[in-house]
Amino acid sequence: MPSRKPPISDTARELGDRVRVLREARGMSIEDLGHVSGVHWSMVGYVERGQRNPSLYVLLRLAAGLDVEVSELVANLPAPPPPTRRRRSRATDTSD
Amino acid sequence: MPSRKPPISDTARELGDRVRVLREARGMSIEDLGHVSGVHWSMVGYVERGQRNPSLYVLLRLAAGLDVEVSELVANLPAPPPPTRRRRSRATDTSD
Repeated sequence: MPSRKPPISDTARELGDRVRVLREARGMSIEDLGHVSGVHWSMVGYVERGQRNPSLYVLLRLAAGLDVEVSELVANLPAPPPPTRRRRSRATDTSD
Repeated sequence: MPSRKPPISDTARELGDRVRVLREARGMSIEDLGHVSGVHWSMVGYVERGQRNPSLYVLLRLAAGLDVEVSELVANLPAPPPPTRRRRSRATDTSD
């Protein structure tokens, strides 16, 4: 049994849960959803496990394959924190 | 004056138009939106010109910076056509 990596974020986990619930409600396998959406089945699996930050195009194609509006997949998802690359050094915060 | 590349798709063009309209309605520059959203200003510009297929995280951060729900950015966007890499050759379509 392969070990499972954790989701990369709460956002990705929640999106993945939504995709899986909709897919299973339609009686589709991961491969089925990949086929009808034009998204590779391995990407479908990664998205469902919350291990990818999918592009807009992937989201739109998955929504089309699930026959839902893309808004249903992304509505009210938690925004991930912004990157911290611009954070100032505390040692210099008092300058001018 | 630099030449402008065309949008990469109708989907990306429509998304970019929505972002720009919302940003300008808030009196923000591209740099302002980059700052409040944590998305590099150059990416904000690419998205507005329809020259990128942004990730879910970028969409969520831009929506947060514009103070709108992400659904407002993506609702009813046209789904781009799926990739054609799996298309069968017409010459073999009658097999089996």
